[in-house]
Amino acid sequence: MFYRTRQLQYHARPDAPDPLYAKKLQEVLGGQWGEISVMMTYMFQGWNCRAPAKYRDMILDIGTEEIGHVEMLATMIARLLEQSPVEAREQAAKNSIIGAVMGGGNMQDVILASMNPQHAIVSGSGATPTDSVGFPWTSRYTIASGNLLADFRFNVTAESQGRLQVTRLYELTEDRGVRDMLSFLIARDTMHQNQWLAAIEELEEDGLEHTPVPSNFPRERELTDVAYQYMNFSEGTESKAGRWAHGPSLDGRGELQYVESPRPLTDDEGLLGLADPRLQGTPPVAAPRG
Amino acid sequence: MFYRTRQLQYHARPDAPDPLYAKKLQEVLGGQWGEISVMMTYMFQGWNCRAPAKYRDMILDIGTEEIGHVEMLATMIARLLEQSPVEAREQAAKNSIIGAVMGGGNMQDVILASMNPQHAIVSGSGATPTDSVGFPWTSRYTIASGNLLADFRFNVTAESQGRLQVTRLYELTEDRGVRDMLSFLIARDTMHQNQWLAAIEELEEDGLEHTPVPSNFPRERELTDVAYQYMNFSEGTESKAGRWAHGPSLDGRGELQYVESPRPLTDDEGLLGLADPRLQGTPPVAAPRG
Amino acid sequence: MFYRTRQLQYHARPDAPDPLYAKKLQEVLGGQWGEISVMMTYMFQGWNCRAPAKYRDMILDIGTEEIGHVEMLATMIARLLEQSPVEAREQAAKNSIIGAVMGGGNMQDVILASMNPQHAIVSGSGATPTDSVGFPWTSRYTIASGNLLADFRFNVTAESQGRLQVTRLYELTEDRGVRDMLSFLIARDTMHQNQWLAAIEELEEDGLEHTPVPSNFPRERELTDVAYQYMNFSEGTESKAGRWAHGPSLDGRGELQYVESPRPLTDDEGLLGLADPRLQGTPPVAAPRG
Amino acid sequence: MFYRTRQLQYHARPDAPDPLYAKKLQEVLGGQWGEISVMMTYMFQGWNCRAPAKYRDMILDIGTEEIGHVEMLATMIARLLEQSPVEAREQAAKNSIIGAVMGGGNMQDVILASMNPQHAIVSGSGATPTDSVGFPWTSRYTIASGNLLADFRFNVTAESQGRLQVTRLYELTEDRGVRDMLSFLIARDTMHQNQWLAAIEELEEDGLEHTPVPSNFPRERELTDVAYQYMNFSEGTESKAGRWAHGPSLDGRGELQYVESPRPLTDDEGLLGLADPRLQGTPPVAAPRG
Amino acid sequence: MFYRTRQLQYHARPDAPDPLYAKKLQEVLGGQWGEISVMMTYMFQGWNCRAPAKYRDMILDIGTEEIGHVEMLATMIARLLEQSPVEAREQAAKNSIIGAVMGGGNMQDVILASMNPQHAIVSGSGATPTDSVGFPWTSRYTIASGNLLADFRFNVTAESQGRLQVTRLYELTEDRGVRDMLSFLIARDTMHQNQWLAAIEELEEDGLEHTPVPSNFPRERELTDVAYQYMNFSEGTESKAGRWAHGPSLDGRGELQYVESPRPLTDDEGLLGLADPRLQGTPPVAAPRG
Amino acid sequence: MFYRTRQLQYHARPDAPDPLYAKKLQEVLGGQWGEISVMMTYMFQGWNCRAPAKYRDMILDIGTEEIGHVEMLATMIARLLEQSPVEAREQAAKNSIIGAVMGGGNMQDVILASMNPQHAIVSGSGATPTDSVGFPWTSRYTIASGNLLADFRFNVTAESQGRLQVTRLYELTEDRGVRDMLSFLIARDTMHQNQWLAAIEELEEDGLEHTPVPSNFPRERELTDVAYQYMNFSEGTESKAGRWAHGPSLDGRGELQYVESPRPLTDDEGLLGLADPRLQGTPPVAAPRG
Repeated sequence: MFYRTRQLQYHARPDAPDPLYAKKLQEVLGGQWGEISVMMTYMFQGWNCRAPAKYRDMILDIGTEEIGHVEMLATMIARLLEQSPVEAREQAAKNSIIGAVMGGGNMQDVILASMNPQHAIVSGSGATPTDSVGFPWTSRYTIASGNLLADFRFNVTAESQGRLQVTRLYELTEDRGVRDMLSFLIARDTMHQNQWLAAIEELEEDGLEHTPVPSNFPRERELTDVAYQYMNFSEGTESKAGRWAHGPSLDGRGELQYVESPRPLTDDEGLLGLADPRLQGTPPVAAPRG
Repeated sequence: MFYRTRQLQYHARPDAPDPLYAKKLQEVLGGQWGEISVMMTYMFQGWNCRAPAKYRDMILDIGTEEIGHVEMLATMIARLLEQSPVEAREQAAKNSIIGAVMGGGNMQDVILASMNPQHAIVSGSGATPTDSVGFPWTSRYTIASGNLLADFRFNVTAESQGRLQVTRLYELTEDRGVRDMLSFLIARDTMHQNQWLAAIEELEEDGLEHTPVPSNFPRERELTDVAYQYMNFSEGTESKAGRWAHGPSLDGRGELQYVESPRPLTDDEGLLGLADPRLQGTPPVAAPRG
Repeated sequence: MFYRTRQLQYHARPDAPDPLYAKKLQEVLGGQWGEISVMMTYMFQGWNCRAPAKYRDMILDIGTEEIGHVEMLATMIARLLEQSPVEAREQAAKNSIIGAVMGGGNMQDVILASMNPQHAIVSGSGATPTDSVGFPWTSRYTIASGNLLADFRFNVTAESQGRLQVTRLYELTEDRGVRDMLSFLIARDTMHQNQWLAAIEELEEDGLEHTPVPSNFPRERELTDVAYQYMNFSEGTESKAGRWAHGPSLDGRGELQYVESPRPLTDDEGLLGLADPRLQGTPPVAAPRG
Repeated sequence: MFYRTRQLQYHARPDAPDPLYAKKLQEVLGGQWGEISVMMTYMFQGWNCRAPAKYRDMILDIGTEEIGHVEMLATMIARLLEQSPVEAREQAAKNSIIGAVMGGGNMQDVILASMNPQHAIVSGSGATPTDSVGFPWTSRYTIASGNLLADFRFNVTAESQGRLQVTRLYELTEDRGVRDMLSFLIARDTMHQNQWLAAIEELEEDGLEHTPVPSNFPRERELTDVAYQYMNFSEGTESKAGRWAHGPSLDGRGELQYVESPRPLTDDEGLLGLADPRLQGTPPVAAPRG
Repeated sequence: MFYRTRQLQYHARPDAPDPLYAKKLQEVLGGQWGEISVMMTYMFQGWNCRAPAKYRDMILDIGTEEIGHVEMLATMIARLLEQSPVEAREQAAKNSIIGAVMGGGNMQDVILASMNPQHAIVSGSGATPTDSVGFPWTSRYTIASGNLLADFRFNVTAESQGRLQVTRLYELTEDRGVRDMLSFLIARDTMHQNQWLAAIEELEEDGLEHTPVPSNFPRERELTDVAYQYMNFSEGTESKAGRWAHGPSLDGRGELQYVESPRPLTDDEGLLGLADPRLQGTPPVAAPRG
Repeated sequence: MFYRTRQLQYHARPDAPDPLYAKKLQEVLGGQWGEISVMMTYMFQGWNCRAPAKYRDMILDIGTEEIGHVEMLATMIARLLEQSPVEAREQAAKNSIIGAVMGGGNMQDVILASMNPQHAIVSGSGATPTDSVGFPWTSRYTIASGNLLADFRFNVTAESQGRLQVTRLYELTEDRGVRDMLSFLIARDTMHQNQWLAAIEELEEDGLEHTPVPSNFPRERELTDVAYQYMNFSEGTESKAGRWAHGPSLDGRGELQYVESPRPLTDDEGLLGLADPRLQGTPPVAAPRG
């Protein structure tokens, strides 16, 4: 069960409205690697967790923090939208140089059209649970497999992609209030990358899971002949220079090999047998017409 | 530019048709962690790559291999569907015990209804680019950020989630032909987990990227006070027991701290200012009626 | 900012596993009118709210409660899935009567195929943020327009559709543990229907909004001639019998009229002018070939 | 079965082309609360209706009218697009002041880029069944539950959100032709809000349905203890001031209570049991490696 | 503007309820090639049409007919659902043989689980605007490009795929009432294939459009060297046997050639230049750490 | 199985970066009729093909070529994005005329906001598998029915819509490098329209399929009375002038007739029977309250 405080976790006030930046900032609220995604992912991983208690609690701690991050971003975006598009249109109409040049009325429309129109028409100057092109958040961004090493690897990725996007957004504004909030989110993503990497170490030390995931699947059930072969499907062999092409495998169970010209391991050309003629597919030979 | 051989990369022939298993197997063809996802992800990462040549070639090698895995799975599914639902319906109708019990005609419909109906109606006994519940593949499963450490972490995840799903599918069938093909895919996923882990090592050794991603963002622009704090948002402190709660941070730049009772770092309650009244939102006080 | 307790808000333990019911119960977790939808809707309405404080707090109170309802349903579904599909397959194989009748191996597959296959392959016996046909939750289910009367009407609807679905699910199971949890959710939905109807009364009493929404749009800007006409676009006049066809309008501003044979109010046939020929559309007359 | 006249229901001709406004106007054609949504919603409610004939006919009357509204909006948008983006690009190129400033060629691209590019590339100056950010209309916007009170509440909402959006669009243009058409749609939405509110009254007077929806579900099957409790999940008690916190409930069946500090009603912490180990989830304790 | 009659266009009454067939029949109501798709496609083609009047009227005639087909299918599906899943569950529970075998309660759940659960939970025994796997209809199925030859080719396809699916559905049932309705839809699809093929002939005879679409694009702007070459990207030359590999081209403007071993026509390896380092992509060489 | 060369199939280098054009060009990479769509469609048609070998090989040849077209477009888009939005923002800030007029800082934001923001934030100056409004590619664009005439008709459409879109994009740029690449794609689409039309001829000559698709469905199972009737659902009879209204049908099996005033062929008004009351739908008469 959950409770809320009245205060935000950290400041979320821009120096000035900026509806065009509001559109971009949506990416880290409702985009694939935004705060809704990590909030929902950690919640479902926690609720579905069957591992020792320290893992479950840790996952739900961070999930709960992320609700507060969603709140901060939604608040910031609503504040960035407090210059009304109607006002902007009116101000622009007074602008004689641009107005004359553009033939009366186009420039102001350009500014408005560069906004996310749904910030005016749909949400009335509020944040929306969508990304920077207006695409709605979807729960396909939520990952919870029941296997914690598979999922913690996803979580490290999410914090990496997320921090990358926030730093890009930092470069796209000069607003000090926005940058202050982003500096907080960047720091928390630093912690969370460290946190999930630590959790991976802990999982391995506790003997719960190893590479390759899943580590308890019986080895005799995989075709070990091809389990450590690097296959070069391109002309040239520049890929031979990397660590992936030679030396012991990183799971400690094999030796990496470089296969310069991989060939099919079967004569099977993938030709299919017959399907029921009543499904009206095209058959190998002509049939009398119905 | 691309070419194809006539043969598949490995065998893809079941011992017997099984339309119900065909439905499940779709998950690793057209699902979130299926072969289309890794094919498209690696292709876009390669085409967008600005890193040294060995990385770009490696990424495109594995992307090209994955086209062949998509081909194998599509072929296998089409073969699993070669028992027609029309024939199944007719056979079932002859079955007097079940037929009598179920009131005539229900049982056969149950079998057919448990199939993915689109395998009959839409594809006429062919594979479809959808997952095990019939949801279409979407390019939101394709990740290519331009930052290779962020992306290689995703790739390790994809090969982990993918291998996990293939082993689960292995347990859900006894068909030797199917299991043979899956044992090949499981082994290739073992290689690919190793390959991306090796590539991460190589990236770090080449000095191209480190934790936290992105590693070249200026440190003074993040709020370092909170960059190494574990925050406990739950009752109780079981999460204190983990590696994430103490000791040096995994990026080697800080010391992890456990904050038992995190408090808001601001007095800001997230209250908003006015929006333009012409957007007809509900204001703080009543206005005369229009 | 948010916190969590260790306990659920109410019991969420079934008497016995039932993977087929787990699939259905997903509807009120991740479906259009499920708990994720109300959680996200109320949160965004609260964060975007510019109305008096009592409204904002009330909206966020209920939003916070709904996080706990999502938690209860996710927990219940994971527990309903604790009978493994692999075990089910093995048990069924021992069943000689059905096995013989169905030709060896079909019946068990029928049971498994009737599960949501992603409950085994994707989530490993955990809940997923999807509905009863496996379609992912999308933020298009989240409504927050900035106009509270428009939004509270949505909220009444959501609690009505949601309570309706929960009562249907109640009829589809005999499990006492499941029914106990549903009886709690049904009661909370009773409260929440009452709560939003009360909030609509309060909004009107506070003079903040009335019918028609939005009530402050200048009346002279609508074509009042047609603002109170019922138009009968069907053969016959059975629709004339209803309250909507006569008497004072419910907004107290007009008199409802029944228009038995509505006619176009314009001669405009919707014919279009020319588009730029370089867009290669089909023009009204043939042009010389390029 | 359906017929069409040659004329539109009302005028739909702008004073001048305006491709940037065309993009915004798409919201009320193909957006969540646009005319396609109400057309499809009312049609499906009518076709699925099992209530008395006057309801079914009324629902289908309005559904049929909405087809004509879709037609008007599609026509208006096609006319707003009759200034070709190719011509706009050429005109802008002649503009020396802006052209010089922007470095030759950028400004015209800005104008074109602010259009919905699909209005040129995909539809060749025609309307598209998408919203103002280009997101396709989806049938998840169609609601038809079989319970008319639940559905009529949705319909009031749809006409409220829709009218709100049309008034916002009215403020975003000065074009008299566009405003004329919008004044017609605003008036019809006034009627339709009245119509659905009247229908709700009629349903209750006919004894067909009441609050709480569904009203015929046996009361003894809900946990009445919590059916009239307002639960305050936030710090502070500002929410206590509202009608929702005290007095008789709006369904006339209970007395509203304010619970200042709600507590969990169970000791259940949501911990899960074991899943089948062959699904390779992370278990509570380490197992020997496979 | 549109009107409706009280009667359906043709009979739509099954001999008996069959909820499992109802699920399948959804494909041609709300699937990619179902009746909603052709209704919406023809409407948008008509409303966006700038070609001679006979084309526009013809397109809108057939679009209007399709509304009536949507109505027939929705009605049929609602009638197929009139056996309640609650009743089915109760009947099955009385069935001792199956019940005993399956361990009490599984069989009835199997039947119910094979239904589309949303037919009970969401629509209360009504049709839904979704396909046979429950995926919602999306307006991406609507095609209207402004170029009538491009669009009429789509329309022939839609009537071909649609008729194919209806014949498959015909084979999947024995119900005479259902088959009667399908025989009507199959015949109308025969007409509509003929109609669009005739319209293509007419377009060409009227000189409005030819192969290749678009036919008025200046020929000197395409690289005619490769405009008639068949390129063989596979091992082997079986594809050489077809009409596509030799003889005059079907547009009458060239001679088809078979290129047995196509080679790249450029030395460009697709290597990219630098991106701004502040976007934090991985660069070609290591940079000092931030 | 597949291989790749190092070179692209044709040049893909723009004269200069142009991030606004990059956004538009995405339409033919990741849009409905873009290169990913034809690549995936032809692959699935080939893998599911049960027709004679020459067809299967031809389909897979062209599918393999399309992978190379996806590669060319992705490369071109990444190169068009090599002017960083951060640099553009800085340059614009120096621009005093515009800067002064717009109030300091707005103009540069306008330029950036007209970009696809995901080209900066998500892909870091790389191509994305989405269309020109940022909507992700979905496998619902992939068509493979098993019936080759139905599918080849789709393929002709795809090459027609695709070529149409590429010619529109040609008109929207002056960049010679971009136009060079487009002239290649336009020519290949010319070939591919010819190729699929030839394949249709071949299918008919080989006796494998005819109009109406599917041609082997027994004629006595369709309602031939209405199989050749043109039905006029509009006021007026302009549609009577076309080839579709008279003369022999194009399948050679009937005579087209013009039905000026089509009437319902049934008395059925589509009224429904009862549903189970426990689903809580609204019934024809009031029931006592629960």
